[in-house]
Amino acid sequence: MSSDGSIRVPAILEKKRDGHALTKSEIDFLIAGYTRGEVPDYQMAAFAMAVYFRGMTDGETTDLTRAMLYSGVVLDLSDLRGPKVDKHSTGGVGDKTSLILAPLVAACGAYVPMISGRALAHSGGTLDKLESIPGFRVGLSLDEFRATLHKHRVSFIGQTKEIAPADKKLYALRDVTATVPCLPLITASIMGKKLSEGIDALILDVKTGDGAFMQRYEDSIALAERMVAIGKGMGKRVAAVITDMNEPTGLMIGNSLEIEESIQALRGEGPKDLVDLSVELSAWMLVLTGLQPALEAGRTKVREALASGAGLEIFKRVIEAQGGDPRVCDDTNRLPHAAKRREIRADEKGFLAQARCRAIGEASMLLGAGRDTVADVVDPGVGIVLGRKVGDAVDRGDVLATLHYNDEARLDRALIRLNGAFVVSQDRTVRPPLVLKVIE
Amino acid sequence: MSSDGSIRVPAILEKKRDGHALTKSEIDFLIAGYTRGEVPDYQMAAFAMAVYFRGMTDGETTDLTRAMLYSGVVLDLSDLRGPKVDKHSTGGVGDKTSLILAPLVAACGAYVPMISGRALAHSGGTLDKLESIPGFRVGLSLDEFRATLHKHRVSFIGQTKEIAPADKKLYALRDVTATVPCLPLITASIMGKKLSEGIDALILDVKTGDGAFMQRYEDSIALAERMVAIGKGMGKRVAAVITDMNEPTGLMIGNSLEIEESIQALRGEGPKDLVDLSVELSAWMLVLTGLQPALEAGRTKVREALASGAGLEIFKRVIEAQGGDPRVCDDTNRLPHAAKRREIRADEKGFLAQARCRAIGEASMLLGAGRDTVADVVDPGVGIVLGRKVGDAVDRGDVLATLHYNDEARLDRALIRLNGAFVVSQDRTVRPPLVLKVIE
Repeated sequence: MSSDGSIRVPAILEKKRDGHALTKSEIDFLIAGYTRGEVPDYQMAAFAMAVYFRGMTDGETTDLTRAMLYSGVVLDLSDLRGPKVDKHSTGGVGDKTSLILAPLVAACGAYVPMISGRALAHSGGTLDKLESIPGFRVGLSLDEFRATLHKHRVSFIGQTKEIAPADKKLYALRDVTATVPCLPLITASIMGKKLSEGIDALILDVKTGDGAFMQRYEDSIALAERMVAIGKGMGKRVAAVITDMNEPTGLMIGNSLEIEESIQALRGEGPKDLVDLSVELSAWMLVLTGLQPALEAGRTKVREALASGAGLEIFKRVIEAQGGDPRVCDDTNRLPHAAKRREIRADEKGFLAQARCRAIGEASMLLGAGRDTVADVVDPGVGIVLGRKVGDAVDRGDVLATLHYNDEARLDRALIRLNGAFVVSQDRTVRPPLVLKVIE
Repeated sequence: MSSDGSIRVPAILEKKRDGHALTKSEIDFLIAGYTRGEVPDYQMAAFAMAVYFRGMTDGETTDLTRAMLYSGVVLDLSDLRGPKVDKHSTGGVGDKTSLILAPLVAACGAYVPMISGRALAHSGGTLDKLESIPGFRVGLSLDEFRATLHKHRVSFIGQTKEIAPADKKLYALRDVTATVPCLPLITASIMGKKLSEGIDALILDVKTGDGAFMQRYEDSIALAERMVAIGKGMGKRVAAVITDMNEPTGLMIGNSLEIEESIQALRGEGPKDLVDLSVELSAWMLVLTGLQPALEAGRTKVREALASGAGLEIFKRVIEAQGGDPRVCDDTNRLPHAAKRREIRADEKGFLAQARCRAIGEASMLLGAGRDTVADVVDPGVGIVLGRKVGDAVDRGDVLATLHYNDEARLDRALIRLNGAFVVSQDRTVRPPLVLKVIE
């Protein structure tokens, strides 16, 4: 660190600590220094904790997002003739909509450059799911990513070392310094990464409820508002939908299981909640890009791409382009499966009142679908298949869930976690609407 | 870090972040891990910032003090037959009372094991002052410290690597993470170090005003109350006096200059404010140890030790025991002196209304009496000698201050800093009382 830097960083920390807004040049100085390894982790940790307590204005958050974004490569996709759009979800259980909407939106004329993440805590990760397809490579170079996009309008990769390196470092640091739940830092992390994709538009699916990152409705709204404001401040078309995450999306949770259910959905055979949410998010993407004039027209267009099999066809081609076996789309038995099954059955007759989302997500992770540490290897075939959705009628002895597992010790831990997760009641629960609120 | 540790530290940070009190075992775990290098600096930085915002209860602060204290060696001085007592000052300008009161209190029958610090920001350090005596060694081993104490009842050393190592690390970290002004951390740092001396009693001189670490009176009171509570909670006899630091103590500021003035004071020829404060603090030390029944008796006893030359005699012997030249006590010309002098004179007749303490301290540091970084070397002879105290009558042309310097460039910077530092008024300023408040 230059002597200028060693003097400036404590002064910046002090300013934030005392509740003052930082200037763009202060934020740039801090993030650029951190990226180069000149500002040490301990000063960033103090910064993150000060931001936790003092917050940031929308202006500061925009500056922080921009600094994160420009800490690395920002893709220039202006050579692609058509709108570029993506979706970001704050994470849920059984949420495989990315895999369905990306090919559908591509089939409707937009480019979808998708940079995704891995399984985290109780929620799955798009990259882990895709890697359960034999041969599928998510570690494309940026050139390969660009070529796949060019040819098929969709490509899926992970955050490379070139993309938002400051975010990568700060994210790992926040995880071990109790500074994860901090709105401006979450916003800058998500938006800094997503905007590096060179997109014109972005739909945000902000989950709320038991299985969501933000469990309280008002926190989900606050995060959505903040992200929409920052995205717009950076000249993008952005909207957010708040959606319910009190039960898993669809029926299948786990890596290859979610690929299987995504293929079913692209065939037009998916569960209603999953298909409806995928169509709704796709319709938003078409509206935000200007490809469709309004949501209703967007929904119609997407339903057509679903019915014609155009979405499935694109998914198949992208799998092939990224080294995977496209035959999984015709025969899901080619996906890895766990060796054993264990069923959980209803003790009584009635209606399914609750399928506790976080517990189900955690049980799937305990079976081996996720990781305790970054070094752990995911078991692609394990997971949970639900037999009933909330609101469904249940007879005594009906299968509520089937656990797909390989290891008895892991099964035991998952069963313990699922204790009390399924609640049958005599009253029929009314399911919440698909979209709780829209923030534009 | 053990996997237990890596799980526990973020949970401890989260608990403090959310405003809950930590348990003794959590605090012990954190500080012991930090001392061993298992808890990294970035987690301690996040901890310090969380404590900055959330504070600590007296119970937590006591546990933290104890954890700091027992991170290293705690001296056992129970073989010394007599009370052990020390003084701590929060730091000021021209404050050389330690050098005067230690030999005086020793002459009155107590042991004074004194672990002191170096110059910091605008305030001087006892160790730097002592090192201006030719040959004087402050880097004694703990055995040498103990032997000197045994023989002369006083010894002066710096914080060794064995003493409160957790404090040493955390203090350096706080300095670069904007977490210095934090009451529980300040308290634990001071008390953890001081109590490692194996003392029975401690008088705290908490300065307030322009030249003090705590400039606001209420902050000084809060710190004093906290330190007294923690010291008592750890079974020590502790009291604090709040004293004014709006002008320097005595007339001389600088390293060898302050040794010179301390010798004058021990000869009975010191300026009134310096002598009165030294006597007052000494009297408190005799009362806290139980050697004297009340303050008035303590003052009388200390004045006797001053008049008889008993204090000066002990100071001379300690200098000799620690490798210094004791002849400086008879002939202060043996101390290092700066080569050049520059006087600042009064422009008008009146009374000295202000001698801005912080500016004078900073000017002395700029002349070379202190350090910008720990690597800098102190110039022992430079400093400032005041010609008038606040309230004194001033004639046009009277010398208000004489700068003792070696380097013209440094002189220029010091003179700029002193611009406006001395204010002459037509009204006679009333000086504040010696002790503003006592906290027992």
